[in-house]
Amino acid sequence: MYVIDRDPLLLTPGPLTTSLRTKQAMLHDWGSWDAAFNRMTAEVCSQLVAIAHGAGNHVCVPLQGSGTFSVEATLGTLVPRDGKVLVPNNGAYCARILKLLTYLGRQAVELPFAEDQPADPQAIEAALMADPTITHVAQVHCETGTGIMNPLADIARVVARHGRSLIIDAMSSFAAIDIDVRTTPFDALIASSGKCLEGVPGMGFVIIRQSKLEASAGNCHSLAMDLYDQWTYMQKTSQWRFTPSTHVVAALHEALAQFHEEGGLPARGGRYAANCAALTDGMRGIGLKSFLSPSVQSPIIVTFRAPEHPGYNFKTLYQGVRDRGFILYPGKLTQVETFRVGCIGALMPIDMRHVVQAVADTLRDMGVPVLA
Amino acid sequence: MYVIDRDPLLLTPGPLTTSLRTKQAMLHDWGSWDAAFNRMTAEVCSQLVAIAHGAGNHVCVPLQGSGTFSVEATLGTLVPRDGKVLVPNNGAYCARILKLLTYLGRQAVELPFAEDQPADPQAIEAALMADPTITHVAQVHCETGTGIMNPLADIARVVARHGRSLIIDAMSSFAAIDIDVRTTPFDALIASSGKCLEGVPGMGFVIIRQSKLEASAGNCHSLAMDLYDQWTYMQKTSQWRFTPSTHVVAALHEALAQFHEEGGLPARGGRYAANCAALTDGMRGIGLKSFLSPSVQSPIIVTFRAPEHPGYNFKTLYQGVRDRGFILYPGKLTQVETFRVGCIGALMPIDMRHVVQAVADTLRDMGVPVLA
Repeated sequence: MYVIDRDPLLLTPGPLTTSLRTKQAMLHDWGSWDAAFNRMTAEVCSQLVAIAHGAGNHVCVPLQGSGTFSVEATLGTLVPRDGKVLVPNNGAYCARILKLLTYLGRQAVELPFAEDQPADPQAIEAALMADPTITHVAQVHCETGTGIMNPLADIARVVARHGRSLIIDAMSSFAAIDIDVRTTPFDALIASSGKCLEGVPGMGFVIIRQSKLEASAGNCHSLAMDLYDQWTYMQKTSQWRFTPSTHVVAALHEALAQFHEEGGLPARGGRYAANCAALTDGMRGIGLKSFLSPSVQSPIIVTFRAPEHPGYNFKTLYQGVRDRGFILYPGKLTQVETFRVGCIGALMPIDMRHVVQAVADTLRDMGVPVLA
Repeated sequence: MYVIDRDPLLLTPGPLTTSLRTKQAMLHDWGSWDAAFNRMTAEVCSQLVAIAHGAGNHVCVPLQGSGTFSVEATLGTLVPRDGKVLVPNNGAYCARILKLLTYLGRQAVELPFAEDQPADPQAIEAALMADPTITHVAQVHCETGTGIMNPLADIARVVARHGRSLIIDAMSSFAAIDIDVRTTPFDALIASSGKCLEGVPGMGFVIIRQSKLEASAGNCHSLAMDLYDQWTYMQKTSQWRFTPSTHVVAALHEALAQFHEEGGLPARGGRYAANCAALTDGMRGIGLKSFLSPSVQSPIIVTFRAPEHPGYNFKTLYQGVRDRGFILYPGKLTQVETFRVGCIGALMPIDMRHVVQAVADTLRDMGVPVLA
């Protein structure tokens, strides 16, 4: 095999492969107190609000750290200490919300679904009717554990009809799959720099209804996680409260410029859908099956069933595919042997066809039969 | 005036000016699950422990976010819910620790000092003797609000003698001013990527006594901030729990290589001391006085008294100096009009002399008399 000295492509749902232009934005140092940097933060925030069509009622609060930090911050800031949160659960990131609520001492009601089944708006409605003390619903949009899409617009309408507050974990879908607050009402939507916006990881952000944010003073269990405090300080000073990851902000600013140049959300989502189709078609061609039914499959990440063959193991597949220039993602299911392939990042359908080729070649090397 | 298109030098105590080589390390994307990245994290952590001479008893737990996130995480993880923390307070970052403890619902005892006076080991000893229910002392090493150095080794000996636990906020001193755990015993030392290590901002880390960390399960108020959970997960998987800021880690890895090439802590601290001397000598030469007495001045950041002249205001000084290629830092004192100049980052004494020149030229433009 040839040894090539180029960076492997990341078929992982964040960190992901970013454009060189995005990374080159990090070749400068910025003063976190300086007007040039503050302007960049403000531009990023207003563009993020606009992607959700939230101008007027919603604001953007950025937060240092991984996306999970922003999920915790949103729950801690928006849910009062005597609040109660319904969590439809069909995967690992839903389960993480339940774990967060336990840490925060907020009451949680789990509504379990099978991992290959989307959350059911009717079941959510029944749960809300059965328990009027539920104040919030925390819904994962695309559950990255499997790649399943939950029917967010229908769920949002149910939650609004029953006068509860909707918090959306849109970490892996935001900017690729439309979430229009005018038709999918929410109080908070959480995402991060290093997913479909194709920035580098290091900051999350929350698109949040200003009236709810203003009413949330004193809720939060943590100074670092207090979105109310972060927002009021930014309003007053146009600066972050604590040292921001300046280079990550600069990279996101540059990534957003490219997002708009590409054609915004429809183009971004369209490219990912084409990536996903190239991937699943190709994998089907070599005999590998998707875990999910196509009707609930997101264009973000695809879970594949591992070949049922004694020669198969993920570690060898991973290394063989890596040697060929691609980084796969392990499965996150406990009952079924799977692996995952992300469709997001600075990738095109031809890259996905090359990944399929690398998987096929590696499986053949492992003695695992491959179709075609 | 000429307009030049180069990045201004940051005379700010983080973010700071980093080397191009450090920034270029961010021109790659890393898989957070990949062995190459995990190796980088492990190398960073073991080098950080070694800088504090902690190998054997201490481990390094890195955490996403700003340094303050790591301070909160340390207090939340190490101080049990019924713990009580003594906080010697001579500046803004000491006050922040008090604010954090209020958020966390941990009892705090403030021991106030004037902002131009170092924390007094004898007063700390008296406070510990007076209240045997104090379990921890949280001591800022170099208080960045003014630039004052607190006598850490003496304080550590007092705390150890009385059998209490010492938590050090060494955010702006670590890697430039020696803190040797064998002679300055501590249970936790907190610092971050973007200070004297000359990495980019985006992660903190805690050098922490393993036995104390192992005994801290269940203390923490927050999942994101739980250093016990972060560490046990890393031990098991060699990965970060939640998406790390991969590019920030890569930059820190490269910055550490340059730290060692420069000659490690003595060389780094020596360069900063030379920067500080060039700065204070130069400022004295143009008639500007340091706020602190030289005997308690750190080589990290210097607070200068603003000229007492009606033509002076910080905003104009800032803009004039910025137009000349340097970014200053505002003062953080409430009683006295000051501004601050950092001595850390990829800077040399000649840069400091140029800053002085830029300050002198700007003041002259403002009609403020300048010596020499």
